[in-house]
Amino acid sequence: MKIRCSQSNLLKGITTVSKAVSNKTSMAILECILVDASGDEIKLTANNMELGIETIVEGEILERGIIAFDTKIFSEIVRKLPDNDILITVESDMKTRIECEKSCFNIIGKSGEDFPYLPMIERNNKITISQFSLREIIRQTIFAINENDSNKMMGCELFRIHENELSVVSLDGHRVAIRKINLNNSYPDKDLIVPGRTLQEIIKIINGGQEDNVNIYYTNNHILFEFDKTTVVSRLVEGEFFKISTMLSADYKTKVTINKRELLSGIDRSTVFVEGGDKKPIKMNIVNNILEISMASYSGSMKEEINITKEGEDLMIGFNSKFFIDALRVIDDEEVSLYMVNPKAPCFIKDKDESYIYLILPINFNSAS
Amino acid sequence: MKIRCSQSNLLKGITTVSKAVSNKTSMAILECILVDASGDEIKLTANNMELGIETIVEGEILERGIIAFDTKIFSEIVRKLPDNDILITVESDMKTRIECEKSCFNIIGKSGEDFPYLPMIERNNKITISQFSLREIIRQTIFAINENDSNKMMGCELFRIHENELSVVSLDGHRVAIRKINLNNSYPDKDLIVPGRTLQEIIKIINGGQEDNVNIYYTNNHILFEFDKTTVVSRLVEGEFFKISTMLSADYKTKVTINKRELLSGIDRSTVFVEGGDKKPIKMNIVNNILEISMASYSGSMKEEINITKEGEDLMIGFNSKFFIDALRVIDDEEVSLYMVNPKAPCFIKDKDESYIYLILPINFNSAS
Repeated sequence: MKIRCSQSNLLKGITTVSKAVSNKTSMAILECILVDASGDEIKLTANNMELGIETIVEGEILERGIIAFDTKIFSEIVRKLPDNDILITVESDMKTRIECEKSCFNIIGKSGEDFPYLPMIERNNKITISQFSLREIIRQTIFAINENDSNKMMGCELFRIHENELSVVSLDGHRVAIRKINLNNSYPDKDLIVPGRTLQEIIKIINGGQEDNVNIYYTNNHILFEFDKTTVVSRLVEGEFFKISTMLSADYKTKVTINKRELLSGIDRSTVFVEGGDKKPIKMNIVNNILEISMASYSGSMKEEINITKEGEDLMIGFNSKFFIDALRVIDDEEVSLYMVNPKAPCFIKDKDESYIYLILPINFNSAS
Repeated sequence: MKIRCSQSNLLKGITTVSKAVSNKTSMAILECILVDASGDEIKLTANNMELGIETIVEGEILERGIIAFDTKIFSEIVRKLPDNDILITVESDMKTRIECEKSCFNIIGKSGEDFPYLPMIERNNKITISQFSLREIIRQTIFAINENDSNKMMGCELFRIHENELSVVSLDGHRVAIRKINLNNSYPDKDLIVPGRTLQEIIKIINGGQEDNVNIYYTNNHILFEFDKTTVVSRLVEGEFFKISTMLSADYKTKVTINKRELLSGIDRSTVFVEGGDKKPIKMNIVNNILEISMASYSGSMKEEINITKEGEDLMIGFNSKFFIDALRVIDDEEVSLYMVNPKAPCFIKDKDESYIYLILPINFNSAS
């Protein structure tokens, strides 16, 4: 194999696929990137058996061939080379020369034959959304998964296609995050349970804007994201996701409308007294048109008042401040509305159209005294 | 005590003095910042018994007093408050209220009486240099100290005042870094051995430019840096520093003049094959007007040629790449000159005036084959 491509193109390709490289595996080949120039294009692939990424690198094939390189060494070499043409020549016994300007590296590749190719996915079912939208709905929900829970569903997000709407749902037992976007067409109902790790990697490599699309194909076992010259294939998790509809309720007895930035700063200030893993709750005391945040610990206490618009009853309720901060940080609205029933029922932060719903379970506020 | 000052001023003061707060101590008072408003100014102090910092915060004293606060809690509170006036009120039993806009924090302070004041330093001997120069000469030498060596001198820098010159010297047994600057006057000879930790903290808080001065006072036991409204006092290390003059030599058999950026990039590329603590040397082969850098390890090899101007003999010599990179990174010249004698004698990187001298010991290059 002999190929030539620019350092910047090659580095971009390596960075993209390296998100699917396994870093703890007993199979050395899974720590590699496959460089496939056996066809008419230079294709890089990485695959950790759960997630696989493939991307095309612009360049010239001088002699067809295929080889795998250890990701760490290969990416370090390319990263440190100047931005100029790189020539990669594979000689007998996988001996490989990587040349750029006056630098010459020699490394030993691995046979491409052992490399696990990405599964072939039937491209029958497809939805198309903008790269921006996909990145945003993941970013705005992914914090509410719990990958360490024994229930592996909590480490996943539900992608629910219903008519012309895509909902993305995550939950960790203490809170639920839901984001919805409209699709251009109506589609048959489908639930896809996508591993959180896949989505965490996707948002690192999907950099396009509102105008750049991503095609999402799905079968019963796989989901495939196709954008620019990159294909990401992930296995889906089998089983049934939590019943979300039973958790949601439109009833409320107290509705608070509040400036988001003020609420976020106030709650953030309360974290001064939260030490490490301590889940000391903040107390919210809603009286007339004031929401008072307070927090007390052995090292001190804080109290803060925020003006609100209130509908319904006064209420005193306690929360884990982290859950509120996580949700408020990903809401772009200037004002947010909180819907509550009583100190033991969940609080909902949602907009009128329910394009987002954040459900947060309260904590017994007596421990917050 | 009752004081009022702006959040930004107070935060700046806390950030400055917190560099001298002890983080591993059995004396809780050393984890505190002293707020002293017993005089006409609000003074913050931290002191870990080796290094002490004192700074004046602009503000209003409504009621005189003095108190110490746990640094972590105090700085977190102030950092999270909005940039507006902060009112600090100490009531009976050290109970303290910190108020800003609609936020109110309550914490318990500690008696200022237990706090170790900074030592009184006689201000007889003084040199003055720009804050920029002080920061630069420290930054350009501090990487060559070794704080973990059993010889504690290696964890220090020598400040040598000789006539109208200040030299700063550090060394770790494998290399020596020397920077010199001119002073405005001539002074009696003096050697000061300053702990590395003091200097590492100083460069974080001394932000002024060429026009901003720092006064450096010294006695036999202490060094004091005075700039803006801040005073830093450090204890000096007793004893005698290494004899530098015996290590330096003007003799050479090979002089190489080379583009600094090219040399740095080339050596940096060789580190691809340096794993963790591995000290595999790079080999430099100087033949006619070419310097060839090469490196070989079990995972691969690299080679690179750089054009040079050479005086004297050809030479093959091996180095630890990190030592070269550290030195080259802090040299601002476009071209650098290397002076060498043989593969076992130190290499000197220095300019004509010897405003900088970096001595690097070679490594047996046979192990670099």
